[in-house]
Amino acid sequence: MKVFVIGIGLIGGSMAKDIKRSNPRAKIYGIDTNEVHLDEALALNIIDKKSSYGELNLAEVVIVSIPVNAMVLELPKILDIVNSNTLVFDAGSTKGNICRAVENHPNRSSFLACHPISGTEFSGPSAAIDKLFDRKANIICEVDKTNEDIHKKALDIFKQLGMRIRYMNPEAHDKHIAYVSHLSHISSFMLGKTVIEKEKNERDIFDMAGSGFESTVRLAKSSPAMWTPIFEQNKENVVDTLEEYIQNLEAFKEMLKNDDYDSIYNEMNNTNRIKEILNGIPQNKK
Amino acid sequence: MKVFVIGIGLIGGSMAKDIKRSNPRAKIYGIDTNEVHLDEALALNIIDKKSSYGELNLAEVVIVSIPVNAMVLELPKILDIVNSNTLVFDAGSTKGNICRAVENHPNRSSFLACHPISGTEFSGPSAAIDKLFDRKANIICEVDKTNEDIHKKALDIFKQLGMRIRYMNPEAHDKHIAYVSHLSHISSFMLGKTVIEKEKNERDIFDMAGSGFESTVRLAKSSPAMWTPIFEQNKENVVDTLEEYIQNLEAFKEMLKNDDYDSIYNEMNNTNRIKEILNGIPQNKK
Repeated sequence: MKVFVIGIGLIGGSMAKDIKRSNPRAKIYGIDTNEVHLDEALALNIIDKKSSYGELNLAEVVIVSIPVNAMVLELPKILDIVNSNTLVFDAGSTKGNICRAVENHPNRSSFLACHPISGTEFSGPSAAIDKLFDRKANIICEVDKTNEDIHKKALDIFKQLGMRIRYMNPEAHDKHIAYVSHLSHISSFMLGKTVIEKEKNERDIFDMAGSGFESTVRLAKSSPAMWTPIFEQNKENVVDTLEEYIQNLEAFKEMLKNDDYDSIYNEMNNTNRIKEILNGIPQNKK
Repeated sequence: MKVFVIGIGLIGGSMAKDIKRSNPRAKIYGIDTNEVHLDEALALNIIDKKSSYGELNLAEVVIVSIPVNAMVLELPKILDIVNSNTLVFDAGSTKGNICRAVENHPNRSSFLACHPISGTEFSGPSAAIDKLFDRKANIICEVDKTNEDIHKKALDIFKQLGMRIRYMNPEAHDKHIAYVSHLSHISSFMLGKTVIEKEKNERDIFDMAGSGFESTVRLAKSSPAMWTPIFEQNKENVVDTLEEYIQNLEAFKEMLKNDDYDSIYNEMNNTNRIKEILNGIPQNKK
């Protein structure tokens, strides 16, 4: 199986590792605008060969794991080159713009729109890890626009990766993911900013930070090059989530100013339900 | 060594476990208003004996790990009973109110005001774990008001627990801890609330949540009974941090509304410095 990974970073690299483990005879071709990453991926044995669009006609599977602004530009070009029986799937964190970018492409049926919900705050091929996708959700959009055999080929790969499949339309994906992913990133970045700004002259104050602070600012280590275009493509939903989040913070602040500690207690007590909700996620079940 | 732990939950219980391991001859007496917790602590071998204020005159060391609203009421009573050579220290997350509550107590010099920066989102004696305090910071306030021998006795215990000591005045503690701890809890609770409210009719949407969401809402599992009085006692500082956080979120939202993606990129890029800052914390060094 000839697998091309376009964008050989955390996601593409981790997929390549898992695919190689499950398919010892798979040959992984890496394509990346970053030559250093390509060399790293080769040295780390994540890819078997550096490649380019000129060889894409050889591909049986193409994984496109690049920032979503590049995705909308590159996917049509990739579909121009590959054969009609080649599976092309993406790993973009937005789905509306990406699906629209290829909706009228003559080779649309070779493409499966995916969002594997998995990652870490790190990036590049050195961040690639084994079993990153095990028990994680993979959201597939507009499956009816993908050729049935191609869809089946993708499901076989996702099964090897251990993923749980969810089908959803791109609009629902983009709306919900704004709440359960994009908002978390902004809350974390702005928390980090608030504290860095305040404590800029007192670096050693971070010595006082416990694991709770670390946990809430972890996502502020994420890549701006990856996240800026995600916020751009999902602008309307993200603005909505931010407005609701800010309203809730304002309300909490007012309760505090008004010494309304019963309401503060109740707010926190109601939100404690998040425990059961998180425990209900299959990936969290032991 | 007779050690009394008043409030035998996550913090008091974890301290008891470490002290017993380092001092096999230490006898741990547990005092708690929650009889179930006392029985649990006894069954878990965290304490050796259930006790009450009536026996506090026997104590060589008293650890007070109760919610900060109870702390300001109980500490003076405890200092009334113990001998003048008994070490009493607290583990409260605020320091101004607690120090003021005992400032004129005739036995003030037996007391050491402490904040061990360690914990998890869980509570109760079953949440107690070994080595919770290893390499963590312990903020000591108003050390000059504590008897020197008593201070030394405390340092010996903290050394056994593996803690790093920092000295600070209560006002500085309360101001900085609002940024690196209290704000994180509110941001997490309000993030949880925003998402639960939005998705209340679509519980299975949480299936889409990845590890990033989990990380940012982890603190929303925390105990409202513990946190409400912390916010009350540190109200002014917490309101300040909330105002700055909300301003930063508003500014981010405006950039997004204005399609100012260069500024969004720069904001995130600047905040990426949190990586180096977190790596600089001694507890994070390998």
